[in-house]
Amino acid sequence: MHSFAVNNFRMKYAFLFLMVLVMACQPNKNGNIPVHPIKKIVLEGLNHPWSIAFLSDAEALISEKDGNLIHANLITKEKTIIKGFPQDLTDSIRTIHFGDNSGIFEVLIDPDFENNKWIYFSYAAKKNGVGTTTKVVRAQLDQDSLHNHQTLLVAEPYTREYFHYGGGMTFGTDGHLYITIGERLFWERDEPPVPIAQDITDKRGKIYRIHPDGSIPADNPNLGPDAVPGVYALGIRAAQGITVQPETGAIWFSEHGTIQGDELNILQPAANYGWPIVTSGKLRSSDYTPPKMEGMDFAPPVWFWHHTVAPTGLCFYTGNEFPAWKNNLFVPGLSRGSLWRFHVEADTIKSAEELFLHNRVRIRKVRQAPDGKLYILTDEDNGKLVQITSNQN
Amino acid sequence: MHSFAVNNFRMKYAFLFLMVLVMACQPNKNGNIPVHPIKKIVLEGLNHPWSIAFLSDAEALISEKDGNLIHANLITKEKTIIKGFPQDLTDSIRTIHFGDNSGIFEVLIDPDFENNKWIYFSYAAKKNGVGTTTKVVRAQLDQDSLHNHQTLLVAEPYTREYFHYGGGMTFGTDGHLYITIGERLFWERDEPPVPIAQDITDKRGKIYRIHPDGSIPADNPNLGPDAVPGVYALGIRAAQGITVQPETGAIWFSEHGTIQGDELNILQPAANYGWPIVTSGKLRSSDYTPPKMEGMDFAPPVWFWHHTVAPTGLCFYTGNEFPAWKNNLFVPGLSRGSLWRFHVEADTIKSAEELFLHNRVRIRKVRQAPDGKLYILTDEDNGKLVQITSNQN
Repeated sequence: MHSFAVNNFRMKYAFLFLMVLVMACQPNKNGNIPVHPIKKIVLEGLNHPWSIAFLSDAEALISEKDGNLIHANLITKEKTIIKGFPQDLTDSIRTIHFGDNSGIFEVLIDPDFENNKWIYFSYAAKKNGVGTTTKVVRAQLDQDSLHNHQTLLVAEPYTREYFHYGGGMTFGTDGHLYITIGERLFWERDEPPVPIAQDITDKRGKIYRIHPDGSIPADNPNLGPDAVPGVYALGIRAAQGITVQPETGAIWFSEHGTIQGDELNILQPAANYGWPIVTSGKLRSSDYTPPKMEGMDFAPPVWFWHHTVAPTGLCFYTGNEFPAWKNNLFVPGLSRGSLWRFHVEADTIKSAEELFLHNRVRIRKVRQAPDGKLYILTDEDNGKLVQITSNQN
Repeated sequence: MHSFAVNNFRMKYAFLFLMVLVMACQPNKNGNIPVHPIKKIVLEGLNHPWSIAFLSDAEALISEKDGNLIHANLITKEKTIIKGFPQDLTDSIRTIHFGDNSGIFEVLIDPDFENNKWIYFSYAAKKNGVGTTTKVVRAQLDQDSLHNHQTLLVAEPYTREYFHYGGGMTFGTDGHLYITIGERLFWERDEPPVPIAQDITDKRGKIYRIHPDGSIPADNPNLGPDAVPGVYALGIRAAQGITVQPETGAIWFSEHGTIQGDELNILQPAANYGWPIVTSGKLRSSDYTPPKMEGMDFAPPVWFWHHTVAPTGLCFYTGNEFPAWKNNLFVPGLSRGSLWRFHVEADTIKSAEELFLHNRVRIRKVRQAPDGKLYILTDEDNGKLVQITSNQN
């Protein structure tokens, strides 16, 4: 009797446990019911947001190109302006003309933010009466205020060309900070005899690799005694998006061409990406002929488009909501409201999909939250943080 | 005691039953392991294959543009030349110059082939000393020979323009046969005052709707007393691909532009697709100005590319191997070896993916076998039938 009762009890227990297992066996959401992405607006009223850095799944720092650096809560929708932003920020609202790229660009948190509270940001800094340039600063965040500012990079000279600041940033798997700086020219006909992006003594049109405190890593490539400090690669026209490929640790960056010539590249030390000597597009100035640079190796793009996309802040997806998208590269665009998905294996692009063709909007950045959710920032007066979620949620 | 034993027995039974259920809960192949398409060569040695009609999952009729109509076994790889093909077939090998489009085009089997043995095919027919044109014939297939030939359509006039025959065919859900006929011109500057595709009295540059025996359905649109018989739509330049959307019964067709202007369209009765008056691309003859046609409504494309694809024989996918692709439209291309996948809901295209970017080959046709497997035909001297299968098979 007793033993039976015990068996009986054990079996009841196992029975209930198995019931739970069985009930958990729902038809897989990625199985016979196709999973399709839909957009869910999480936050509105952002002034041309440029970048987002997640402090948690629910809290993020958002840089508004034409506004402020903001601390946003994705649940309560509360937005707090971060105090103590540098005073030499160019106000792109007041400055000049349509198409002005000035403003606040990238914002990153330190990999060890939990302990050191460092945040990193880039913006268009002004020098009165001279012009503007791209500046990278870090500061410690405390109670929504910035403290202990340290200037890490100033891409001099200051000029009155208000385009192609670059300002894209990412931390590499090596813990170093990688920064894109554009060449700041609109017309190639204004290039000096040695084009800006090809001039190793000019800070513009380069990609930099520095320590988080701004010092130069000893193992940076040696580009000669005249090279500006921290230069890692050259021949860059207008690169905004730069990100790490988790599977390989490789760094990918997007670049704007002129007439076509929008590209994706993989970063290599001392590589020359060719602008304006070679491009997958056309030069904007029909009367400009770039100088020949015999014997120079130019790194070819991994991908280029046959039409204008204006690719911006890209990222690789590692979340679980879209299993078929695992390790895919997402590239948003300003032009035509593009959101591209690339199936990438190592450095090979196997397919390219343009999403939301029926629902286009200018997109500045695509980012993944710590919980794996995928978000985009729309470049609008009423800019939005939009979650790319599944039609089955 | 007894009742306990019974309970115990019942519970053991339920226990085992639940064990089976639990064991059946394998991780779904479309779940955490991404499903990606790969190519599997099924058949080789085809002479620029143009179309395929499946007699079963293992047997098919394949039309070789530069060869023969073939009966192929996909298992044994055996190929048999169908006897009794019409004698006025143009030999595109012997004819003229590079880029000659002449040859055998579409092949279809009758929806009731099992009983009536009718097959339908289109080809470039010649009239000695005059030229060629598109001809549509049906015949009964018996022992790999054609019998009881019936000519259904001859797109006169015969001309020495060896381009843009059209020749795409599909059966509609209404049981009628739909046929695309190109306008046969290479240069717009050769257009007559009323452009060919706009001239309702000219057989070229139109889409036709006929009964399987060649007679004209009573409910065809009335395009006036001078309209050529069977015309269903006009303003067509060079359409090869035409297929039915299973979800809606709508008929979609692909069209070649000149410089860009490659399009996807949905067929509507009496619709005018605009060539050469309007196009999403550019005219090839810079010195040609199409006549104004005031008050004429032109049907806009559902989709057009910003670069050249040369889209060909498209089809919708309804198989089970790629659940996420259910009801997607597949469009192959000759140019750049394209294979495009469109996520379509009703008449809205939501995303567009170009597949196999690392493995391009000219593709003339994409077709689905009765078992739901997806195949492409490559346009090569050593043409291939390739199955698009999953990396998990």
